Parts: sequence; structure tokens; C-alpha cells
Amino acid sequence: MAPPSHLAYVPFISVENMMRLVHSIGIETVLRELADAIEHDFTRWPLFDKTPRIGSHSDLGVIELMPTSDGELYGFKYVNGHPTNTKQGLQTVTAFGLLAQVSSGYPVLLSEMTVLTALRTAATSAMTARHLAPRDAKVMALIGNGAQSEFQALAFKAVVGIEEVRLYDIDSAATRKCAANLAQSGLRVTPCGSSQEAMEGAQIVTTCTADKQYATILTDNMIGDGIHINAIGGDCPGKTELHRDILLRSDIFVEYPPQTRIEGEIQQLPEDYPVTELWKVITGEVEGRRSASQITLFDGVGFAIEDFSALKYVYTRALETGHYQHLDMIADPDDPRDLFGMLTRAGVEAP
Amino acid sequence: MAPPSHLAYVPFISVENMMRLVHSIGIETVLRELADAIEHDFTRWPLFDKTPRIGSHSDLGVIELMPTSDGELYGFKYVNGHPTNTKQGLQTVTAFGLLAQVSSGYPVLLSEMTVLTALRTAATSAMTARHLAPRDAKVMALIGNGAQSEFQALAFKAVVGIEEVRLYDIDSAATRKCAANLAQSGLRVTPCGSSQEAMEGAQIVTTCTADKQYATILTDNMIGDGIHINAIGGDCPGKTELHRDILLRSDIFVEYPPQTRIEGEIQQLPEDYPVTELWKVITGEVEGRRSASQITLFDGVGFAIEDFSALKYVYTRALETGHYQHLDMIADPDDPRDLFGMLTRAGVEAP
Repeated sequence: MAPPSHLAYVPFISVENMMRLVHSIGIETVLRELADAIEHDFTRWPLFDKTPRIGSHSDLGVIELMPTSDGELYGFKYVNGHPTNTKQGLQTVTAFGLLAQVSSGYPVLLSEMTVLTALRTAATSAMTARHLAPRDAKVMALIGNGAQSEFQALAFKAVVGIEEVRLYDIDSAATRKCAANLAQSGLRVTPCGSSQEAMEGAQIVTTCTADKQYATILTDNMIGDGIHINAIGGDCPGKTELHRDILLRSDIFVEYPPQTRIEGEIQQLPEDYPVTELWKVITGEVEGRRSASQITLFDGVGFAIEDFSALKYVYTRALETGHYQHLDMIADPDDPRDLFGMLTRAGVEAP
Repeated sequence: MAPPSHLAYVPFISVENMMRLVHSIGIETVLRELADAIEHDFTRWPLFDKTPRIGSHSDLGVIELMPTSDGELYGFKYVNGHPTNTKQGLQTVTAFGLLAQVSSGYPVLLSEMTVLTALRTAATSAMTARHLAPRDAKVMALIGNGAQSEFQALAFKAVVGIEEVRLYDIDSAATRKCAANLAQSGLRVTPCGSSQEAMEGAQIVTTCTADKQYATILTDNMIGDGIHINAIGGDCPGKTELHRDILLRSDIFVEYPPQTRIEGEIQQLPEDYPVTELWKVITGEVEGRRSASQITLFDGVGFAIEDFSALKYVYTRALETGHYQHLDMIADPDDPRDLFGMLTRAGVEAP
């Protein structure tokens, strides 16, 4: 069988190559560059095709497709969410994604996105905090110390300048794991015995718990004036982290309202409750933080444009560093109308 | 870096392995087995999650995602349609697809689907004709001799028992290519100078032209009583092949009405024009062909369940034959909550 032509090949970033790529650049640099890439695409928000993710739900979880396009490139992410997977030694969330040329429909990149999603989620949170958190924020409470927690800590260090993270999780083993992973990070890491204790002295609180249905990770009395809340754990229907009273005291910022109203903290509020679209803050169209006493809440659920930005970023970086391989994914007959001829000739030429 | 665990690997069928797989089984056997697999899933139609495909349209074409699930497996296909691609030496349609376990969300197969879509489209047409065409059909007119034409010819030979194909295309080079590809097929192949000539003596007519907007490949006077029309070229909004009068004389059978009303020949008809869902014919709930004089029309646009059946079929066959490779696509940390630890340890261990 003759080797496939270059048109047949799609660059593929495996998990191993993604990890090599991240280490060759440096995790904090990747988080900073991702935050900038995502911020840039938020300034181009109106030109993207936007649609709420397309979910396939079962009793055990959800499988979603998240497509978007900026008119030049098309991207989508496949992602699942299965809270009970960890009991079988599996990831709660796994993901992969694809970029394609809009003009031809040909894929230009296939990539693992389990690691990349963790990076882009943290970069989005930190980029958002750059616009909404108190300017001198140095201390962050980190409630929920699972798979996303260290990425959040490092992103807030690299992008916002956070110096101390105060950890709490109902499972103290998770806190120990998180603290150990951050031991060499340059952050001051303070494990705490309660959410309340974690909140002491914090200007930012990040909630990223995983398995709870309508849990109340934070109650109203814990949130003092001026705090920025980065709530990213409530990200599907029936799953929230914050007491409703906190929402009522906060100015709420969201990625894409039609999706956040279904999946975010604001599913607790009436459908017409006023929220601000984050991209309008980033373009300067709407003010973000207006005063030192204001409580700002980023109700982050993750949106397709962030994955698009992340895929575009690693595409460029992978081609630069060579951390990818070629996949023979696209049939490329000599004559495009002669797919059958390609198939039959392959049979004749096969050993 | 330690090698990824078995949980990290997803079986992948490249274009080359798909061709090997098909030849190791035999093209006609594959078409017959695919027709049976698709027919079987049509009998289970009500239990599938069904949604019209999710398209991203541009001036030059469309990129679509086609997801479905039977509750055990989830599948989706990525497919583009760019009629002008052939001018750049590219395929009009390229595709790949994925199967995943509904219970865990973990992918179990990634596969090329450009070749596989050609096979499943032909198998679906032939399976449908088995239910709708005149019982003694031996001659098929094949109007449009592009990339799909030979697959149609072979599928109708293998599944329906067609002995002669009568070819016509406005581009005589396409007809010559098709005739040459079918020279060894065992079919009697008759190139014709017009659609009218191709129709002579045919009990079945397949229209599979590619680039026309609201073209009229067949006019009413060409369709005699008792004919089965397999119309598969009109498969997107604004693209049809048949004169409206033919539709009005025919009993029309479709895959999934909400999609076909947008994409199929019936976009020329009122929204409530009666059509029969093919799966009801296959389960015996509704009669298919009722008389020798009836004109039956399969307005085929391709539906996600056919891709699902095809993916499931090649999944089984690839595991049996070994015609696949492993892709390191899923991050698999020792502790599922410790994605960050996996990433940082990879950095320490990297050369």
C-alpha cells in the first residue's frame, strides 16, 4: 500500500505530547499565554458562532459536544462528565478536541483535551479575575482540592499575582495531595480545617468542588465585602455550590448567558435576573469592578470559545516544538471523485 | 516518561487500516453486513437519542456533528461538505467518527469515516431498496457517477441482486471512471448518453449527483410506474435533484423527518406533506411497497444512526482482525483526582 499523501495527515497531540509541550514551555508560561489567548478571543466575541453545548445525558453522566467557529477556524470539544467514574479509577472528565479549516472542512489538529481543559479552565478563571478581583489581591481561598485545584492556584499566581492559597476540602486527603503538589510552586500554601478558616484574609475565593448536587459550599455569612468569587464547580443542571443569598449580593459575570442559566449558579435565580457578559467587560463596553466593597462573582461553566482559543494556542506551539505526531485520518484519493478506485487499488497493492 | 496505561489508549482505525479491514473481509461482504447492521438498528429506532445534525455553515460549505446514542454506546460523526473542494484536489466530503461508553464517557473507538461513510451510505440505500424496490429488480440507472456511484452499484449487487447498472453523468469522464472501476465487479455496465437512456429498462434509479443547487436530474416524464427512486444526492438545504411532480406521484420514505424536511427532496413540499418513516416499514408497522405500479421514493439524506451502526460494525471487525492502532488520547493519572501530579511527574521524568 502506498504511503498516504500529506493531505491525509492530521497533526495529533497525544497526552504524552501535551505534557511534553507544557514542560518545554513551562506550566506558568503556558497558563499566562493561554489567559492572553482566551482574553484576545473574548474581545472578538461577537464574530464567533455560539451555541449551547449539545449534551447526551444518562443516569451516570453526560457526554457533550461543544462546537464554535470564528469564520476561519472551526473547533469542537468532546467532553464527558461522570462523577462516579473515580470509584472505578477513571477520570470524572476526559476530553479531546479538533480544529478544522472553515474554507475546506479539513481537520488541521486533533488533540487530547483532558490536560488542556484543566489548563484552559484555570487560565479563564485567572484572566477573569484580572478584570474583576480587587487590584491588590494576594490571598486566595481554594475550596475543593480535586483535579482542578492546583491548576487554579498556579494560574492565579502566574496571571493575578496571588502569593498564598488557603486550602479546604471535605476530604482531607485531597487537601494533602493539593498541598504536596504545590509545595515547590513558590506559593505559600495553608491547609485549613474549614471553609470559614480558608476564607480568613482572602480577597478571592475559588470554589471547584466536583460531586455535589445543589451543595452549599459557601454560605452568605462567609462572604465579606470586596471579595471576588470564582465559582467554577457548579457546571451542569442540578449542580450548584453557592447559597442563593450570595448571588443576590453579588454582581454576576458569565460567559454565555443561555448556557450559564442552565448550568451555572444562576440556575437558582429567575430567568431574567440581570447578569453581565464577561466579554463586554474585557472590551471595556461595561465596567467590571466599580468599588472596593463590591462583591464580584464569576459564574464560570466553561464555554466552547475557551476551548477554541486553547486548541489554537497549542496548535501553534505544537508545530513550533514538534510535540505532535501525524494521524492518517483523511482519505486522499489522487482524483477526489475516485474514492472507490483508491480503495480497490489499496486491495491490489496490499501484501 | 512512563508509558501510558491501557486506560489511556483508544483504538484508532486510520484510512489505511480501514482499507485493509475492508479488503480482508471483502467489499461486497462488508456492504451486506453493514446493510444488516443498519437494518438491525432501524428496528431499534425508538430507543435512540435523535437530533438533527448540528451544522456550522459558511459560504463555501458546512461542517456538521451528528451525535446519537442507544443508551449503551454513544457515537458521533464529524463530516464536512464543501462542493468546491475538488477544484483544489480535496475531497468534497471527509469524515471521522467516535464511539464512547455511555456509562463512563470514555471513548472506545476513533475511526476515519470518509471511506466508511461511502460504504454506509450505499449499504443504507440498498437495505432500503430491499424493502421498497420491485422484487425482481435487476437493472439500476445510476445518475451521477462521482465518488459514491461505485459503492451504490456494488451494494445493490450484493444486497438487492442487481445485475446491470446504466450509467449517466453530465461529465462523461466521471462515467468512464465509474465504468472502469466496475469492470471487474461482475455487473453488466452500460454507459449512457442521457438520463433518459439510462432509465431504459431500469426498475431502480439512483440519483447521486454532487454540486447542483435545486437541479432537476430527473423530470416527471422519465419516471414510469413501479420504479423505486433512490435519491441520495440532495442532502442539504437548497440542494435537490428531482422535479417536484415526481415527488407528488411517489410514496415517500425518509430516515428522520425533522432532518429530511430541511435537507431532502421534500424541502420542495409543504412542511406537513405526508411521508413514511423508514424504520416503521422495517419493523413491519407500516407497509412499504403495496403494488407493482406504485412509485416508491427513498429521500435519503444520511442519519446519525447509520453512522453509529457502521462504527459499531467496524469496531467489532477491527478488534477481530487487528486492523487498528492505539492512540494515547485519554489522560490516565494513577489517582484520578491527581491530574496535576501526573503532569508534574511527567516533567521530572522527561529526558
